[in-house]
Amino acid sequence: MSHNTYGHLFRVTTWGESHGPAIGCVVDGCPPGIGLTEADIQKWLDRRRPGTSRFVTQRQEEDKVKILSGVFEDDRTGGPVTTGTPISLMIENTDQRSKDYTEIRDSYRPGHADYVYDQKYGVRDYRGGGRSSARETASRVAAGAVARLVLGPSITVRAAVVQIGPHAIDRSKWSWDEVENNPFWCPDKDAAAKWEIFLDETRKAGSSCGAIVEVVADGVPPGWGAPVYGKLEADIASGLMSINAVKGVEIGAGFAAAALSGEQNADEMRSHGNSVEFLSNNNGGVLGGISTGQPIVARMVVKPTSSILTPRKTVTKQGEDTDIRTKGRHDPCVGIRGAPVAEAMLAAALADHKLRHLGQTGR
Amino acid sequence: MSHNTYGHLFRVTTWGESHGPAIGCVVDGCPPGIGLTEADIQKWLDRRRPGTSRFVTQRQEEDKVKILSGVFEDDRTGGPVTTGTPISLMIENTDQRSKDYTEIRDSYRPGHADYVYDQKYGVRDYRGGGRSSARETASRVAAGAVARLVLGPSITVRAAVVQIGPHAIDRSKWSWDEVENNPFWCPDKDAAAKWEIFLDETRKAGSSCGAIVEVVADGVPPGWGAPVYGKLEADIASGLMSINAVKGVEIGAGFAAAALSGEQNADEMRSHGNSVEFLSNNNGGVLGGISTGQPIVARMVVKPTSSILTPRKTVTKQGEDTDIRTKGRHDPCVGIRGAPVAEAMLAAALADHKLRHLGQTGR
Amino acid sequence: MSHNTYGHLFRVTTWGESHGPAIGCVVDGCPPGIGLTEADIQKWLDRRRPGTSRFVTQRQEEDKVKILSGVFEDDRTGGPVTTGTPISLMIENTDQRSKDYTEIRDSYRPGHADYVYDQKYGVRDYRGGGRSSARETASRVAAGAVARLVLGPSITVRAAVVQIGPHAIDRSKWSWDEVENNPFWCPDKDAAAKWEIFLDETRKAGSSCGAIVEVVADGVPPGWGAPVYGKLEADIASGLMSINAVKGVEIGAGFAAAALSGEQNADEMRSHGNSVEFLSNNNGGVLGGISTGQPIVARMVVKPTSSILTPRKTVTKQGEDTDIRTKGRHDPCVGIRGAPVAEAMLAAALADHKLRHLGQTGR
Amino acid sequence: MSHNTYGHLFRVTTWGESHGPAIGCVVDGCPPGIGLTEADIQKWLDRRRPGTSRFVTQRQEEDKVKILSGVFEDDRTGGPVTTGTPISLMIENTDQRSKDYTEIRDSYRPGHADYVYDQKYGVRDYRGGGRSSARETASRVAAGAVARLVLGPSITVRAAVVQIGPHAIDRSKWSWDEVENNPFWCPDKDAAAKWEIFLDETRKAGSSCGAIVEVVADGVPPGWGAPVYGKLEADIASGLMSINAVKGVEIGAGFAAAALSGEQNADEMRSHGNSVEFLSNNNGGVLGGISTGQPIVARMVVKPTSSILTPRKTVTKQGEDTDIRTKGRHDPCVGIRGAPVAEAMLAAALADHKLRHLGQTGR
Repeated sequence: MSHNTYGHLFRVTTWGESHGPAIGCVVDGCPPGIGLTEADIQKWLDRRRPGTSRFVTQRQEEDKVKILSGVFEDDRTGGPVTTGTPISLMIENTDQRSKDYTEIRDSYRPGHADYVYDQKYGVRDYRGGGRSSARETASRVAAGAVARLVLGPSITVRAAVVQIGPHAIDRSKWSWDEVENNPFWCPDKDAAAKWEIFLDETRKAGSSCGAIVEVVADGVPPGWGAPVYGKLEADIASGLMSINAVKGVEIGAGFAAAALSGEQNADEMRSHGNSVEFLSNNNGGVLGGISTGQPIVARMVVKPTSSILTPRKTVTKQGEDTDIRTKGRHDPCVGIRGAPVAEAMLAAALADHKLRHLGQTGR
Repeated sequence: MSHNTYGHLFRVTTWGESHGPAIGCVVDGCPPGIGLTEADIQKWLDRRRPGTSRFVTQRQEEDKVKILSGVFEDDRTGGPVTTGTPISLMIENTDQRSKDYTEIRDSYRPGHADYVYDQKYGVRDYRGGGRSSARETASRVAAGAVARLVLGPSITVRAAVVQIGPHAIDRSKWSWDEVENNPFWCPDKDAAAKWEIFLDETRKAGSSCGAIVEVVADGVPPGWGAPVYGKLEADIASGLMSINAVKGVEIGAGFAAAALSGEQNADEMRSHGNSVEFLSNNNGGVLGGISTGQPIVARMVVKPTSSILTPRKTVTKQGEDTDIRTKGRHDPCVGIRGAPVAEAMLAAALADHKLRHLGQTGR
Repeated sequence: MSHNTYGHLFRVTTWGESHGPAIGCVVDGCPPGIGLTEADIQKWLDRRRPGTSRFVTQRQEEDKVKILSGVFEDDRTGGPVTTGTPISLMIENTDQRSKDYTEIRDSYRPGHADYVYDQKYGVRDYRGGGRSSARETASRVAAGAVARLVLGPSITVRAAVVQIGPHAIDRSKWSWDEVENNPFWCPDKDAAAKWEIFLDETRKAGSSCGAIVEVVADGVPPGWGAPVYGKLEADIASGLMSINAVKGVEIGAGFAAAALSGEQNADEMRSHGNSVEFLSNNNGGVLGGISTGQPIVARMVVKPTSSILTPRKTVTKQGEDTDIRTKGRHDPCVGIRGAPVAEAMLAAALADHKLRHLGQTGR
Repeated sequence: MSHNTYGHLFRVTTWGESHGPAIGCVVDGCPPGIGLTEADIQKWLDRRRPGTSRFVTQRQEEDKVKILSGVFEDDRTGGPVTTGTPISLMIENTDQRSKDYTEIRDSYRPGHADYVYDQKYGVRDYRGGGRSSARETASRVAAGAVARLVLGPSITVRAAVVQIGPHAIDRSKWSWDEVENNPFWCPDKDAAAKWEIFLDETRKAGSSCGAIVEVVADGVPPGWGAPVYGKLEADIASGLMSINAVKGVEIGAGFAAAALSGEQNADEMRSHGNSVEFLSNNNGGVLGGISTGQPIVARMVVKPTSSILTPRKTVTKQGEDTDIRTKGRHDPCVGIRGAPVAEAMLAAALADHKLRHLGQTGR
C-alpha cells in the first residue's frame, strides 16, 4: 500500500529528500545468514555515483552507506551476516550546496513534479527537487545490492544503455565488457563514440535528450512469478516505471511484437537433456507472468532531462505566466544514470519473487 | 501481496478457470451509496463479448453477470446502491464445449503459459488455458464497470486500437465516434478498412498478429497518484502489463521520448483563469507519479495470438520433441479484445487512486 | 489492507450478506497439489451448522459448499487437487425466511452494529444483520478446512468451550473426546450437565450469556511466526478478535500472568534427545512472536448474544427514544457456535505463517 | 505483509537492535501540513525513558530523536510541517555498555525469544536481546507522537496501569491526574502506595511480576473502523499484542463479559440532541468493528519480566542442560513501561483508521 515501499516479501522502503540531512532505506524480509558488509553495498553505489564524468551531474557526493541494523556476526565464520531483521541503510547528504532556490520555489519547472506536488500536498521541499529528486535512487541501488546477495552468484543482473537521443546501438556489436569501458553504459563501442559527440552538442546547446536502457537477468530458473496481477512482467514494469523520468517499459520483443506474426513471435522449444531449449526469446524470459529459464530482458525509456538551460514557458505559484530556465548541475541525459537503478529494481523484483515462489509452492 | 488481486483501497480479486463452472470477482473497497445494478455492469460485458464479429473468437458466451452481495435498497430512492461491503460478481461458464484436450495436455504450446505452469505448480488445468485464459478478463471488465461508477460521470475512460500488425492509424484522422463503428475499436476509418483486409489474410493463413491499444482517461483532476513506488504510471503499468499477452506499456510520448529534446518534451504551462493550461501532453497527464489534470494517456502492446494453425516446434510433458498446431476458436488478433480490458484496468487504477488520495491528504 | 481479507500468503477474502442470494469466499495462495473435494470442506461446515440442537439458532440451512475454481484432476492420481490458483467457494442462502424487518430497519438494536453501520455508510442491509451477521463465519469455516489441508495431518487444531456464563469447566476433567459428546463443545462432562440447565433457564428467561472458547493447535514446529508486528500472537489475536461478538483474546496464561511471578511464569527447558522439552507452557507455545514447538493455546471471550427478548432502551433512525426486543431465532449463547470458527481462524493463521516461514527464511 | 510494519495508510516501519548503532522508524502515510518538530516527539520519549525511577531499568539512554526526512518549512507560517513524504526518525544508542554476553550467547533464557530465534533464523544478535529487546518500543513511542498529531487535539489517548502482580486498583478511585504523580502510571493513589512496597519486595527477591495496562481514547467520532477482518478491535488487538511480553488483549468489558447477561451487557441508547447517548460502555467504544463515539477502552496484560536473578533451568545452544540467572539492569515489572507504548499503539491504530475511513467512505 505504501507508495514508498517496493516489494512484498523482499521489501524496500526508502525515505529522504535531496537536501535533507540524509537519505536511506529499510530493507525488510531479507533472509538470514547472508554475508553482508558495507563494502558489498558501497561498490554498487560507487558505480552509480554522480560526478564521475562530464556527462552526468557534477554534484560531488561521497555516498557512503552505513548499515545501522540487521547484521550480526556469524557463529561459525565470525563474519557479519544478515539476521532476518530489517536492514537499515543510511547515506548522509554531504554536498547540500547552499544556493538560491527562490526561482524554483515560486515557479513550476515544466516536466518536473513541482506543480503536482503543490496541487496534492500544498507544501513542497523545493530544494533540489526534494523527494522527487533522482537522489532517491541511491537508496534503490543500495537495496539492490542486498537483493543481489539474496539472488546469489548464479544470477547476474546487468544493464546497458541501448539508445541515446535518436541514436540506437547496433545490437550485433553488443559486448558486456564494453559497458565498463565508456561513461555511457554502452555495449557498442562505435555507438559510444557517436554518443560522446552528440551529448557534448546537447550539453553545449543547453538542451537534453532521452535514452533507452535495457536490463537483463541471466540465470533465473523457470517457475518464478505468478499468473494474473502478480505477473513477473507486471512487477518489473511497476518497478522500472517508478524510476524518475521513466515513461515506458517493455519485456522481450515489446512494442516491436505488434508487427510480428504469430509464427515469428512464438518462442519454439526443443528438448535439451533434462531441460528445454527455447529457439528465440521474444517473450523476454517470461510467459504468462512466470519465468521460463531464459534471460529476463526488459527495457525502459527515460525522458529527456526536464532541467534545461533553454527558457520554457511556465506559471508561478501565484498563477502568473513566466519563463524559467534551470541553472545548476544537471545531466544532459539522465538516462545514463538510470542504468544502475534499472539493475537495482530488477534485482529487487527477482529477490522478491524468489522468496514468494517458496510461499506460493509451499516448498 | 495476492497475485489475484489488483488495487489497494479499491480492490479487485478475480477467480475462475476458462472451463470451470464459473468465473468471477470480489470488488472490495467500493464506497457506499453508489447506484449499482446488473445492467450497469452488463453493458460493458456486452461490449467485450466474444462472438461479435469474425475477427474475434467464436466462443458464444452469454456472459451474464450476477451480483451476489454488496448492494441493497437505498432508504430514500429505494433503488439498489452499494453498501460498502464486498461486491461479489459471478459469470457462469455456459459454453464449455466438450472437446479433446489430449494434445495441449501433453504438449506445451509455444508462447503460452503451459510449460511454466507445469514448472511452477506441477499441475495445470489445461482446458482452454485454465486460469491463464483470456476469459479471466471478463471479470476485469465487470470490476471496471464498478470502478467507472466510483469515478463518476465527470471522468471517462476510453480505449482505441491504434496499430494492428505493421499498420498504424493516422492520428490526424482520430475520431472516438468511429471506434463504435467498426469491429476493431479503430478511431481511423481508413485504417479500419485496411485492417479488415489484413486480418482476413492473417486468419486465412492460419497466422496471427499483434496490436497496440491506447487508453485515455479524461476529466482526472490534478493531484491523484503518489511519488516514488506508488506512482500513477507504475500502477497503470502494472495493471496493463497484467493483461494476457501484453508485453509493453508506455505513458504519454513513451518510447518516442528517447528521441525528443528536452525543449520538445517539456510540457510548457500557461495560466488559464484559476487553473493551468499545458501546451502539450508528452507526459501523458502524469508528472512525478501524480496527475496533472490533463488526459491520462497510456498505450500497451499485445503480442500476436500464440494459438495459431501453423505447426510450431515444441516439447511434450515427457520431454520429447514434437510439433503442435492449435486448432479451435481463436482470434487472429487478441489485441482487439484487449481494448475493453485496458479501459477496465485504467478505470480500476484511477478508482483506487481516487480513494487513496483521500487517505494520503487526510481530507 | 482489505477489511474483508485475512492473511498474507494464505489469504481468505469473504463476501456476502445474511439474506442475499449466497455467501462465500476466495481462498488465495493455497499451494498446488493438495487433494481437495467439496466433502473435505463440507464435513467442517456440518459441524458448525445451526439447527443442530435447541441451544443454537434454529435457522435450517443446508450450508452446501460448492467449489467454483482452483481445483483440477491430478495427473497421477486422477483425483482433484489444488492448482495454485484461487479457490472460490460458494454457499447459497436457502433459508431466507421472509419476515417483517421493519423494526430493525428503523431502530438500532443495542449491542449490534446497526447504529455504527448507519453512521459510517449511511445505508445498511438490515435483513438478519446483513454483512455483520454471524452467517459470515460459515465462509471462515470453509476456508479453515482448506487451511487444515495446507497444515497437513501432523497438525491438529481443536477448540473447546471452557466457560459459559459464570460457569467455568474443571480443567482437571478435560477430555477432547467429551467435546464430541455434548452440544456445547464442552471438554468436561460435569460442566456440560450444568450448562444444559443454565442455558435452558437463560433461554426461557429471554436472556443470553457469554462464553470463553479455548483453541489449541498441536504439532506446530518451532520457528513459525516473526518478531515485532507480525508476531504469531498478534495475527492470532487479530483473527480471533475479528469473529463476531469476540471482545478479548489471550495466549497461554494470558491475563492470569499478571499475578504470576517471573519464576512461575518462565517456561523452563530441558534437553530432550535432539530437541528441547519445556516444563510448562505459560507462553502458550509462542515466545517473541515465534512458535516454540509446544501446543499453541489461545482463548477468546464471546459476549452475550445481543439479540434478546427482554426489551431494551434504544433510539430510532430518526433519533427518537424507543424500546426494542429482538424476536426470532437466536442462540442464547453465540459463544458455542464460536468454537468451530475459532478453529478455522487459528488454522488460517497457521497456514499463512507456514507459507510465510518459507519466504522469511529463504528455504 | 512486513512483520516490521504496523498500519495500512498510516504506516510505521521500525528497525534496529538494542546494541546496534541506532534504532528508528519510518512513518509513512502521514498527511501533509501538520506541524512537527523534534520537540513534539521528544516529550513523549522522555515520558517513556528508562532510568527515571528505581522501578524501571537503569539503562541511561538519552533517547534523543532526530527527524531525518519528511518535514519542511511551511509557506505561510515558516514553521516545519509534514510534507506527505516518509518521516524518518532515528535514535542513537548511546548506552551500549560493553559487557560479557557469553552466557546468553550460549544459553537460552526461559521466557525469552532466544531459543526460537535460533530455531528460525540460525543467527541471533544476543546483545541485550537484539531485535526482541523492549528498546524497539522507543521507535513506537516516537511514531505514536506523530500519530497523535494526525488525530489532532480533539482526541486524547491515555494509558494507566490498573494491576501489578495480584494487586488491582480500585476503579472508584480513578484519577487521570494521579497517573502523573507516581512512577507506576497508577490512577489510584492508594494502590500506588501498595505497589511501591510490593515492587520493592519483588525486586529484592530477584523476582518479577506482571501487570495489566488500560488504554483509553477519548473523542473518537462514530464510524471509524470496518466490519469483519479490519475491525477496529482486531487492529487494536494486533497492535497491543505485538508489544513485547503482552499475552492478552481485551476491549470494554472483555473477559468479564462471559459472566454477564445479555441485558447487562447491552449498551442501551437514548437520544441526546442530534446525537446518541449510550447508558454504558461494555463494548469499549466499538460495535461490529466500528467506533460508536464512546471512549475506546482496551486492556493488555504484560507477563512478568523474564529476566530474573533466580536461576532457572534451561538448555545451551549445544543442547546441554544448564541453569541460568539473568544479571544486569532489568525492570521488576516491564508492564509499567508498557503504558506509554500502549498509548502509542492505540494512537497509531486510530490514525490509520482515521485515514482509512476517508478511503472507505469516499468522502
